[in-house]
Formats: sequence, structure tokens, C-alpha cells
Amino acid sequence: MILILKKGISNCEMENLKEEIAAKGFTPHVSKGDELTIIGLVGDTIAFQDRFNLSDERIDRIVRIQEPYKKVNKMFKSCDTVVDVAGRKIGDGNFAVIAGPCSVETRDQMVDTAMGVKKAGADLLRGGAFKPRTSPYSFQGLGEGGIELLLEAKKETGLPIVTEIMSVRQLDEHASEIDMIQIGARNMQNFELLKEVGSLDKPVLLKRGMSASIKDFLMAAEYIAAGGNEKIVLCERGIRTFENATRNTLDISAIPVLKRKTHLPVIVDPSHSGGYWWLVEPLALASIAAGADGLMIEVHNSPKEALCDGEQSLKPERFENLMQSIRNMEAFRRGGFSA
Amino acid sequence: MILILKKGISNCEMENLKEEIAAKGFTPHVSKGDELTIIGLVGDTIAFQDRFNLSDERIDRIVRIQEPYKKVNKMFKSCDTVVDVAGRKIGDGNFAVIAGPCSVETRDQMVDTAMGVKKAGADLLRGGAFKPRTSPYSFQGLGEGGIELLLEAKKETGLPIVTEIMSVRQLDEHASEIDMIQIGARNMQNFELLKEVGSLDKPVLLKRGMSASIKDFLMAAEYIAAGGNEKIVLCERGIRTFENATRNTLDISAIPVLKRKTHLPVIVDPSHSGGYWWLVEPLALASIAAGADGLMIEVHNSPKEALCDGEQSLKPERFENLMQSIRNMEAFRRGGFSA
Amino acid sequence: MILILKKGISNCEMENLKEEIAAKGFTPHVSKGDELTIIGLVGDTIAFQDRFNLSDERIDRIVRIQEPYKKVNKMFKSCDTVVDVAGRKIGDGNFAVIAGPCSVETRDQMVDTAMGVKKAGADLLRGGAFKPRTSPYSFQGLGEGGIELLLEAKKETGLPIVTEIMSVRQLDEHASEIDMIQIGARNMQNFELLKEVGSLDKPVLLKRGMSASIKDFLMAAEYIAAGGNEKIVLCERGIRTFENATRNTLDISAIPVLKRKTHLPVIVDPSHSGGYWWLVEPLALASIAAGADGLMIEVHNSPKEALCDGEQSLKPERFENLMQSIRNMEAFRRGGFSA
Amino acid sequence: MILILKKGISNCEMENLKEEIAAKGFTPHVSKGDELTIIGLVGDTIAFQDRFNLSDERIDRIVRIQEPYKKVNKMFKSCDTVVDVAGRKIGDGNFAVIAGPCSVETRDQMVDTAMGVKKAGADLLRGGAFKPRTSPYSFQGLGEGGIELLLEAKKETGLPIVTEIMSVRQLDEHASEIDMIQIGARNMQNFELLKEVGSLDKPVLLKRGMSASIKDFLMAAEYIAAGGNEKIVLCERGIRTFENATRNTLDISAIPVLKRKTHLPVIVDPSHSGGYWWLVEPLALASIAAGADGLMIEVHNSPKEALCDGEQSLKPERFENLMQSIRNMEAFRRGGFSA
Repeated sequence: MILILKKGISNCEMENLKEEIAAKGFTPHVSKGDELTIIGLVGDTIAFQDRFNLSDERIDRIVRIQEPYKKVNKMFKSCDTVVDVAGRKIGDGNFAVIAGPCSVETRDQMVDTAMGVKKAGADLLRGGAFKPRTSPYSFQGLGEGGIELLLEAKKETGLPIVTEIMSVRQLDEHASEIDMIQIGARNMQNFELLKEVGSLDKPVLLKRGMSASIKDFLMAAEYIAAGGNEKIVLCERGIRTFENATRNTLDISAIPVLKRKTHLPVIVDPSHSGGYWWLVEPLALASIAAGADGLMIEVHNSPKEALCDGEQSLKPERFENLMQSIRNMEAFRRGGFSA
Repeated sequence: MILILKKGISNCEMENLKEEIAAKGFTPHVSKGDELTIIGLVGDTIAFQDRFNLSDERIDRIVRIQEPYKKVNKMFKSCDTVVDVAGRKIGDGNFAVIAGPCSVETRDQMVDTAMGVKKAGADLLRGGAFKPRTSPYSFQGLGEGGIELLLEAKKETGLPIVTEIMSVRQLDEHASEIDMIQIGARNMQNFELLKEVGSLDKPVLLKRGMSASIKDFLMAAEYIAAGGNEKIVLCERGIRTFENATRNTLDISAIPVLKRKTHLPVIVDPSHSGGYWWLVEPLALASIAAGADGLMIEVHNSPKEALCDGEQSLKPERFENLMQSIRNMEAFRRGGFSA
Repeated sequence: MILILKKGISNCEMENLKEEIAAKGFTPHVSKGDELTIIGLVGDTIAFQDRFNLSDERIDRIVRIQEPYKKVNKMFKSCDTVVDVAGRKIGDGNFAVIAGPCSVETRDQMVDTAMGVKKAGADLLRGGAFKPRTSPYSFQGLGEGGIELLLEAKKETGLPIVTEIMSVRQLDEHASEIDMIQIGARNMQNFELLKEVGSLDKPVLLKRGMSASIKDFLMAAEYIAAGGNEKIVLCERGIRTFENATRNTLDISAIPVLKRKTHLPVIVDPSHSGGYWWLVEPLALASIAAGADGLMIEVHNSPKEALCDGEQSLKPERFENLMQSIRNMEAFRRGGFSA
Repeated sequence: MILILKKGISNCEMENLKEEIAAKGFTPHVSKGDELTIIGLVGDTIAFQDRFNLSDERIDRIVRIQEPYKKVNKMFKSCDTVVDVAGRKIGDGNFAVIAGPCSVETRDQMVDTAMGVKKAGADLLRGGAFKPRTSPYSFQGLGEGGIELLLEAKKETGLPIVTEIMSVRQLDEHASEIDMIQIGARNMQNFELLKEVGSLDKPVLLKRGMSASIKDFLMAAEYIAAGGNEKIVLCERGIRTFENATRNTLDISAIPVLKRKTHLPVIVDPSHSGGYWWLVEPLALASIAAGADGLMIEVHNSPKEALCDGEQSLKPERFENLMQSIRNMEAFRRGGFSA
């Protein structure tokens, strides 16, 4: 942390400030120029960084140098994390595809779609039992019944299941039944939920909030990791911008930026990013090219009848074709693009 | 709802579509031009609006005309709602100021600040016991101890208290003790929490999410209202944009837009909007000029030592001066600006 | 400017870097901690700030402390600038209203509207002869004929005229005829035009670009000032965000932020900010409350027939009423809000 | 165009409105429901669409159905356009790489970099002679001298040259010397310049504005095409969002969206999108995977000494390696990803 002091600060004020810094256990390094005086505070200032603010009349500007996350910071753990979800690995060269319907609607829809997804070669099965819908008048998910259908689909296909959990209460009731807990974009900063999930020994799929900066996103992951659970997979799913030709704006750059800053795996949800089924393929392939460790794709056996996100869902046949492209692209990447 | 059909749709497809619409209880109005065929569906299409999507090969575009909210829609309730918080009224000409520290820190800090806020003439007292902090290493609030100190400050000052609740569990434990429940920006789409709050008979202060459109904001309020609780006050607190000279960008236009669309009271939080104490006065006064029904302002007895949001907190003396300006501006507005 | 060096930098590399800095005429102040080494460069680093970048393997981070603008910086000129437009003053307590149609369409429209605007008490007359329209198929303005009609309206009303100039060529031909040159939002970073305008002795109304940060905005003004022309009035007119209930999002906070950073007058265009006539009044009054030095408002004698921006134009009667409110609010502000 | 009328519109008003529509040469199709009355206007309403606006008290909402662009619209020209720049083709399966320094600085820098770029296999050479810099104190380009050095580099390498033109005056002087005119992001809505460029018979590289929607972008291209010049290549280069970990946010989805809406070639500038050299490779490869017709990449023989954009420039060796990956990825795409 660097404190840039106000012009005209007196020697007395400066001495007091240095004592305050020392009292907090740090050695202040003062650099005094003709126009500008700077105090550098070196060491672990993460916990410390709230302790000075611009209400202090002596301080003109504060520059925070250390990244505010530790456990998810690549600087402190150089090996990439591999998250194991019931035997399927994600990260550090392990590529995984999660697929399935936006919401679990009926037994037929769920099992049919799951069979299609399995046949196409997906690694994990997704499906929403509890649905965070913008409107209270929209289909809210089947709840517990949805979990049961998911478990049935798991039995039929052998695929581990990923499903969104929206509250601590749902977590208490269903965490043990599911293989990977999804924290949705709208709950990315539901800190009570993050803390609770952090205390479990269970893989977590954390989706980026619509207006979360990359730093916010990593801090949300840090909440989970700080609780002891480092089985975290990050999922970029588009951010909110002025552009409305797409549902969200896929922040493709977030993939290489995240992979530089954290050791956690990073996957992409091209379905929510674009919002239209015809955007899924180009966005999925681009994500692999940019370094993603996996994909999460919405598939529905009859998109036009879907109760949720039909416009962005692929039919099983189309998904099967896409899986071929995905596998080819991933193999091409593994070979090194310039080879 | 208007369906704009794909070019070259056959008569058969058209007849089928009309039957499907009729089967859902609506009368389709077809308008067929040389190049374009349009089907208008009139009536209450809110529940209906998920039932068609662009995966349907017959449909080129869907235009949703009805606003998706009912209970909070001004069209269906022309009189403005007045929310009564333990005797203090907000809305329909009743202007209220909520003030206090970002977080409850110590007994002295809370009671001192509360006394200052009371003396300056605020109507309600705020203070955070449970804090949604971006970092797990930042002060997380005193929790239950904070609620106790708030209750003590209430006893000393007689001011009703407003505090943020972050989970259903906290709600179960503390809803009865507090006068107004605040739902924070990061929980604006925590639908489980909204539903729970909707089932209570207790005033709610709903803050706009950082990337929530005005429509999203009203839909979040609709969640609460749909559960039966219409004691909702909306709070604009800035949105996230590219501009970083301020913490957020106060969307001042949201005030007149919201007041045109809903009967609910609309207040503004100039502290979080700007992020700096010197922005609070101009933003507060501008908000009144634009039609706000109240303000929520952070006050701290020693901002430079605040554990949270010190940079945007006013000292009690400055707040007292601001209260005078607020009252004058509000009286000026009541007189009609052009009088 | 502060250079934060990469960890593990050798003494040799450090010495070389210090020499490079010295060779550029600066004295490096090194602050070496256990984990972090910082070099502070004090003095006028504005011109210098491009000379180091992160491609340099020795540098981890660069913090630029000095604001990159000089001539428009309040730090170097504490008195507020007053811009005089043919006798009408703007800035430092002088409040001015510019009003008129979006585009000059016909003699009747222009003169009628001008008479209404004059009667209502506006200080300057606006009207577009050259129109920057998003579509090549939209009305592009009357061009020279529009300038002539503006001059006629000026003769009838005695009001100085403000009009947009879109190219150097138009400037050569018309600068002498008009009283204040408007640089539109889309040309805010048309640097060739800015340089040319900077060489004139003529007041300039510079509108903020849709995605211009406050810093970008001030740098655009600096281009004009650097050329020798400091008769600049800044105009906030809304920025582009995700919110689409309004045409743009009025960044009301930009007013107090700009007034803290620059000595130039700051006015607001509530018409383009909101995009609807019913938003003009609340946004205009809010802007005054927040400290604006003036307003620019679109008025048309028959908005529903306007060839441009009819939705956001006021009829002369409504404008007259608004002018009363504006004058009252401005007088109220002059009295000090807390008096 | 669809007009949704206000509730309670009288028969008289309706008849008048129909007559007004008919007087403009259109046949109104009225669809009257119990609650809603809709008038559909079929035919070429592009020119017509400004002629009704919400100031009209009879109209509640206007829905514009037709895309406002014609010449660049894929609907009216199903074959993709191929732009030929001095023998190098872009579009419809022809992939091209434009590379070179941000700005032309010295003879050595330009020729060295050009030779490196040529050796690596680039198709066209870029270099800025006129530079649109945010600060008037930054290097503004060599101007005419820069054009001369570019021509020299062209002679040495045989590569056609692409350079930015910022004003009509520069266009008059230099258009004949250069092979492809670049219109920069900041000039995307400099309509005078677009019109002038539209009258030439010369390839144009049009960069997307920082806050331009895809529709705005296409309308800017339509300006050029409307003047008769359809040799337009569109360049996505990142948009401005709240995320500041990257210089801009590459809107990767814009590639497939644009290719669905227009027949013009679409290329990507990964250098400006990310803002850091280490982001160029992943963003370049992702762009190809998403369907781009080419890339524009900044290369400098000594990035740390670059007078402009050094942080995002590749050294020639690194570029050479990237070119190999680009060619491989492009060949892989040509084979069909799922083959």
C-alpha cells in the first residue's frame, strides 16, 4: 500500500502518521520530493487496507498494490488446481463439458435430454431444480421434485450432476445429494451462501455476476476458499454492457486474465453469454481457443417448448455435432497451436 | 404481445399457430402485409409471455408490450403508496431521511452517531450489523451484537431502525426486532430472500442492484409484493458504468422514471452513489429536485477511523448543516418550483 | 509517477533504470522494502508519462499521480473561468440557458421557436444546421441555409447563436458568423477539429462523448486550451450504460466532480440525457441543484412534426413554465441552500 | 413499423392517423383488441421511421421492425463481400492479417518492423502517421513524414499499406498514396469523414467506436456504402465496459452477430481489445474460432521504447510464432471444426 500525502503536510503530522503506521506493525518508507511525499507500506497489507481512507485529511491518494486475494492467488500457489467432481476432473489440462436443460421440467424432458447429452459425450449433467427467475410469474422450478428427477437422470446416465442452490436452507437439504453446487450469477455476492458453501467438502461452480469485475469475481471465490473449500471452478457467463444484440457480452478476455491471476479452473457458459442458440457454437469454440478449461451448455429436447431459456438451448442433435467440434478444438489446442 | 412471423410462413403453419394461441385462451389478431405478417395477442399476457420463444421457427421477432409487473405498476393503482415505518411516513408527499453509520462498530460510535443524527433531524436511524463486504478479510459486522447496539441507540433516540438482512436465517432471528428491513444491492435478486420478506408484514427498503435495469428493479419489488407485502420503498444507489471518478454512477433519471411507472416511494442513497463525502450534498439536493421521496445518508462520528465506507461518511456537524439544506429544498419543492 | 518494480530486480538493473530516469531529467526516489521496490518520480511528469510502459521487464506496475491536464486544471488556476458569448456570461456565478430546436427546419419553425425561447427568457439560441445523424437516410440538416435562418432568428430576437460544427471545412466557412461553436458528443475526440477550434478566438461548447470518462472529457478540453483558446464550456449530456429506459444516463455526479477538477464552466443538456420531454424538467432542476452553470434545452414549436429529436423537445409554453422554475431554483441556490 | 396507440383513442383520431399514414404513401393495417390498438405499416419504412415520434399524443409506443440499414444488410445481398486491397483479398473465405507498429516513429523502426512483419507472413502493413492521442502532450505522429516512411516500407516489403486518416483535409492529400484507409474508433461517427470516404473508390477499414452498438456500427458503414463505396471491412476492437483489467472488452460475440447481419468482412484487433501483449494470442485465436475474416495486430521492434501502445505490441519474433498459430487455426477452421 502506498499513501500519497497532501501537499503542505507538516513535519508533526508526518511524524504522527508514521507512528500510527508503526503502531499497526508496519515500517513506513518515506520518499519526500519537492512536490510530493509518498509513504510506502510493504508487507501483508491485505487485512490492513481498510485502516486508512481518504477521510484522513493528511492523505491525498491511496494506491493498493497487493491483490486483495490470497488463497485463490496464483502468486501463492503456482500449480493449477484440479477439481474432481465424482471422478470427472476439471483444470490443469483436464477439459470438461457440463450440459443439460436450463430447468428440470418433466421426467421425460429430463431423462431424454440427459440421454442425448450423455450420448454426445458430455462429462457432467446440469439441470435447474430451483430457478432464479427475474419474474415471480415465471416458472420457478420443480424444487425438490426437480432434484429427484436429476437423481433419476444421473442413475440412467451415470453422469455426475450440477445444480444451482439459492439459499442456505436448500443447501442443508440437498448438498449431500448433488455432485457439484452451482452458485448463480445473481448470488455471486450472496456472502452468507458463499460462507456456507466454503465450509463444505464439495465442488462448487461459481458463476460471475453480471456486473462483477474480475477482482470482485476472485474475491467471491476467496470467500469460499477462506472457509476451507478450494474445490472451486470459475464460470464466465457474460457481463452486462450497453450492447443489446446479445443477452450479455461474453468477456472472452476474462479467460486469459483469470488464468494469469488464479490457479482455479475457468470454464465458460456460451448459452447465457449470447442468449441465442446460433451463438453457442462460435462462442464455445472461441472460449477453448482462449484457454477455457471447460464449457457449460444448455441442451433441451424441445427448445420451443422450454419453460426457461428456450432461445439459447441446443437440441440434442445439434449438441452432438458441437461436441465433435469441441473435442477437435480441444485436441488441437493440446497439440500446441503453433505446432 | 406481438409476434412478427418469419417471411414465407405457409397458410398451414399460420393456422396451426393461431390454434395454439387460441388453445392458450387468447384471440389472435392477424395483420398480413405484403412483406410482413404480425399477430397481436391482446389481454393479460404476463403469465403467457414465456410461452413463445425464438426457437420457434415460425417466429422472427417477439415484442412484449405489457410491462411484466402488476402489483407495483402505477397503471393498476393510481394513488401513491405511503409506507409507514413505526410512525414515520415515506411517499406521496411524505419525505424522510434515514441516516447513520455504514456499520455498527462500538457502543460509543453507535450511540454518539445516533444522537448526532437525531439532533440534526433525521427520521430514521440506519446501521449495519451484518455487512456484505467484498472481501472476506474486511470487517464483517458485529452480527447479533450489532443488533443489540442498534436497539440501544433506538431507545436513546426514539428513532425507528433500518438495517440490512442478508439471509433467511437472519430474518427468522431478527425481523421482529427491527423496524425496516433493508435488502442490499447485492441481494436485489436473491429471490429466496425476496420471497421470504414478501410474506412478512414489515416495511422493506429495497436497494437497486449495481447492474439492475429499472425493469429488473421493479420485478424484484414485484417478488415482494406478489407475496403480499406492499410496504416497499425503492432505493436508487448508483449503477456500475465505465466511469470510475465516482464509486458508482447515480442514475438520477431513475427517480422520475420510477415515479412514472410505480406507485411505490423512491429514495436515494447519495453516499454509495458517489463514494466520497464531498459528493453527498450535491447528489442529495439533486435527488430532491428530481422528485425523490427521501434520502439515506451515511454519518459517522469519526469517518477516518470507520471500519467501512469512511470515505463517503459525513461527520455529524456536516450532516446537521446538510439537513437544513435538505429541509429547505424539500419545502421549496413542496411550494412548486415555478410558484 | 511511481514505478513499482518487479520482484527480484537486480542491483544492476536498478542502477540502469535510475540512470535512464536521470537522463530524462528526473531525480528518482527509491523506496526499497523487503518485498517491494518503488521508485517515485516527482516533478512535471505529464510529458514524461508515455516514456515508460509495462513492456519494460523491470516494471511491474506504473501509477500515474499527476492529472494529465494542465491548462484546464483547477490546481493551476483557482479562479473559475467566465466565458462571454456576445455579452452573455457563463461560469463563476453566471448562469445561462441555451435553448432552441434540435435542427433548423424551416423559416417559420426557426423564427417561431426562437421568439418563444426569447420570450421565455433564454440567454442564447441553439439550432442545428449540420446534423450528425446516426442514419444517412435521416434528415441531415439544411447546411448553409440553416446558418442563414439562424442568423435571421438572431436578428429577430437579439440572442447570440450556438450551433454545431462537424468539420474543419465547415469551420472555415462559418466560424465567423456564429457566436459559439458546438462540438458534438460524437466529435469530442475528433482531435483535428479540436486543434482547429483551439486556434480560434471564439467560445466553444464541448459536449461529453457517450463513452468518455471525465478524464477523457477534460483531455479533449485540454486539446482546445493547449491551442490557446480557453473559452470553453463543458456540457454533460448523458453517457451510455446498460439502462435503456432513458436515451442516455445523465451522469449528474459529473457536475460536482468536474467543478472540483477544472475552472471551466459546466452546463447540462437534459434533453439528450433523458430522451423524453417529460424528463427535461426534473433533470434540469437536479442539474442546478448539483451545481451546473447553465442548461441547454431543446424546444420546438411542434415536436410531433420535428425532423429530429421530437420526443425530447419541449413546446414553447412548457419551456416558458420551466424557465420560471429554473430561475427560481437558481435564485434559491444563489441564496445558499442552508440559509 | 408498428404503432401501438394510446388507450382510449377516439375513432376520429384513429381515422385522422390513418389518413396521415396514407398521405405518406403507406397502407395502415389496424388490429384492434379490447385493450390495445395496433397499426402495422408494411413496406420500406426506413426513410419513414423518423416521421412519427412519441410526442404524438395518440401514440404510446413505436416498434421499428426493419433494420435501418440497406446496402450493408445481408438480407439484400446474400453473397459475402470480398474486399481487394492491392491484390490481397479479405472476406468470403479470404483471411488476412494486417500488422505493424501503432505509430510510425523512425525510419529504422518502421523498416525493421515491416521486414519482421513481412517475414512472419502478414498480408498488409499498418502504421500510424496521424495519431488520435487522448492527450495533446503525447506524440501526435509524424504526419506527412510518416506517410513517406510507410511508402518506403511498402517498397521494401511489397506489402500494401493501411493507415488512419483523421480528417477530410488529410484525405485530400494522402488518399491516393495509401492502399486502405483506416477510420479509427473515435471517428466512427465523424459523419463528414464517412461521407467523404464513401465517395472514393478505395478500401476502407472501419473500426467500431468504443460505445457503438452493433447497429450504430452498421449504420456508420451504411454511410460509406450509401455514398457508393462498398469496399468496407469492419473491425471489432473492444468496447468500453466497467471491467478495467483489460483496456477494452473484446466483444467476441460481435463477430457472429455481424456476420449474420451483414455481407461485409469482419476482422478483429486483439491488440487494442486487450491492451496487453500477453492477451494478443488468446484473443487472436478466439477471434478466428468465432469466425473472423482477419486480424489487425500491433508489432514493434522495441515495445518498451514505443511512443504509443508499447504495452500491447508484440516483438517481431513473438509475432512470427503467433502467425504460425494463426495460420494453423485458420486451416483448422477451413476444414470444418467437426470434420
